[in-house]
Amino acid sequence: MKKLINHPADVVRDALAGIAAAHPDLTVDHEQRFVRRADAPVAGKVGLVSGGGSGHEPLHAGLVGHGMLDAACAGEVFTSPVPDQILAATRAVDGGAGVLHIVKNYTGDVLNFEMAAELAAESGIEVASVVVDDDVAVQDSLYTAGRRGVAATLLVEKIAGAAAEQGRSLAAVAALAQRVDDCSRSMGVALTSCTVPAAGTPTFDLPETEMELGIGIHGEPGRSRVPLAPAAEIARLLVDPVLADLDRGGDDVLLFVNGLGGTPSIELYVMYKEVATLLAKEGVHVARSLVGSYVTSLDMAGCSVTLLRLDDELAALWDAPVQTPALRWGR
Amino acid sequence: MKKLINHPADVVRDALAGIAAAHPDLTVDHEQRFVRRADAPVAGKVGLVSGGGSGHEPLHAGLVGHGMLDAACAGEVFTSPVPDQILAATRAVDGGAGVLHIVKNYTGDVLNFEMAAELAAESGIEVASVVVDDDVAVQDSLYTAGRRGVAATLLVEKIAGAAAEQGRSLAAVAALAQRVDDCSRSMGVALTSCTVPAAGTPTFDLPETEMELGIGIHGEPGRSRVPLAPAAEIARLLVDPVLADLDRGGDDVLLFVNGLGGTPSIELYVMYKEVATLLAKEGVHVARSLVGSYVTSLDMAGCSVTLLRLDDELAALWDAPVQTPALRWGR
Repeated sequence: MKKLINHPADVVRDALAGIAAAHPDLTVDHEQRFVRRADAPVAGKVGLVSGGGSGHEPLHAGLVGHGMLDAACAGEVFTSPVPDQILAATRAVDGGAGVLHIVKNYTGDVLNFEMAAELAAESGIEVASVVVDDDVAVQDSLYTAGRRGVAATLLVEKIAGAAAEQGRSLAAVAALAQRVDDCSRSMGVALTSCTVPAAGTPTFDLPETEMELGIGIHGEPGRSRVPLAPAAEIARLLVDPVLADLDRGGDDVLLFVNGLGGTPSIELYVMYKEVATLLAKEGVHVARSLVGSYVTSLDMAGCSVTLLRLDDELAALWDAPVQTPALRWGR
Repeated sequence: MKKLINHPADVVRDALAGIAAAHPDLTVDHEQRFVRRADAPVAGKVGLVSGGGSGHEPLHAGLVGHGMLDAACAGEVFTSPVPDQILAATRAVDGGAGVLHIVKNYTGDVLNFEMAAELAAESGIEVASVVVDDDVAVQDSLYTAGRRGVAATLLVEKIAGAAAEQGRSLAAVAALAQRVDDCSRSMGVALTSCTVPAAGTPTFDLPETEMELGIGIHGEPGRSRVPLAPAAEIARLLVDPVLADLDRGGDDVLLFVNGLGGTPSIELYVMYKEVATLLAKEGVHVARSLVGSYVTSLDMAGCSVTLLRLDDELAALWDAPVQTPALRWGR
């Protein structure tokens, strides 16, 4: 295993210390392992809390800041944060207007966020939750009942974050977050396995001539093992199932081509070109774009494609100012 | 070779098409292979042109936009752009105040930018040049006389870009760019080799237990092959030579921890923590930070550390608004 780390057991602690040192706008609770806006709680604003296992950076800690998350809880690598952590983060960002939990659909995350929400409610904090499940690859999976939550989580966090910043109510922000999830579909492909630091060896074997189509962001099996293919063919293998599953209300979409951690920018732009070409042929208009490694699986090489069906409201909230380590514009 | 590409010969063309499709603020000249601000030339503003071999993305095309570059020329992978390309880009962004060429110190780049500058001068465009050579690892190298230009190129582009946006003269912007280079030092480490698409196999062999200290961004040899080490030790191996070579006028620095393409964000933050810890012990105050994969070497795993000695002027220009695909803030 070749990684820029100290002891494998210290990766999450060390990375959180790095985030704290690099970003003075953020405050890290090293005891409870969550990252929050230094100015949280923002009085009268709905607080947004997300989190999950580490290893998907910049999701979630790199998306904390003005216009997006108020706090992110960091579990161990590929392991859900515990209810106490989530409860502490929820308390830390409650500005009196309630807190929205944004949860990726993995059994451990869903249970622990539910428990934290109950505990928060007992202490008088109103909590709503949205469970993100955008991955069309498989119905159930290694750690999931139903579909997995993957890259659309970022879109939910951005758009719900913008709505919260505008002062909308908890019910309104939660409904909007749910709508983003409903209008998003994703699928990914792995060219290589990731390596979990504590394991020290690749999570799965993938021959030099094959790729895993429909990969999960923890290395969970996808739909099928298929021969390595040119980018144009890979794009088709990802776009077809995403489009087939996406209700085509309008034809404006946000296209998000996401790297899985070990894939450089030049390849993501090659993929973007192929995906955009296919969408143009289908009459789908890409109105907004995001290209980069935002929802990763440690050092896995590969990418995912996410489409979000846009309307004017969602587009305006996407465009609204955001100020986080990984996503910044408009201020 | 596992990459998200079509034919290896088409990687640069395809990536440029992706950039054009994803970023409506940018215009790509597919014939001459340069990316420019869609609103270039900006009348009365010094134009900034950079470029070099592809494979270092987002450097340079991802750094074109308001407050930074006006155009970036894309050579083939790890191959300098040709003089005609650079001349075309120079003409396209000349707003009457002259054009600054920002050139990484590799023999091919330096010669080709020089020739383009002469041709531009013959057609009446005033051109100044700065050659970036921040890499303390080696004095001469495979493609370089003198030191190599690496991650400080981004800092030069950002700070000179902000000065140009303020309406400063060509001489003033060029002097500032030179000052940023003079005040910057970098060193990198590779955990794995990159693989050039046209070659199809790793550029060099690196055993599972070793790393290449002082690596160049084309896989050129560094200072030494040393045993793999924990992040804290790697940080020391990079920071010591950088600090030893940096004139410590003031003690405020910008710290840039840069990923080489195959290294995920979580590891960069672990490295950031270790580097920041060492600097604190040395009494060096980190006043600004950048963490991410901006100056890459295709899919190489590893990182580089760059320090820029800051004064108030450089810090203010760093903070100035920038609006590019890879670096955006303040607008």
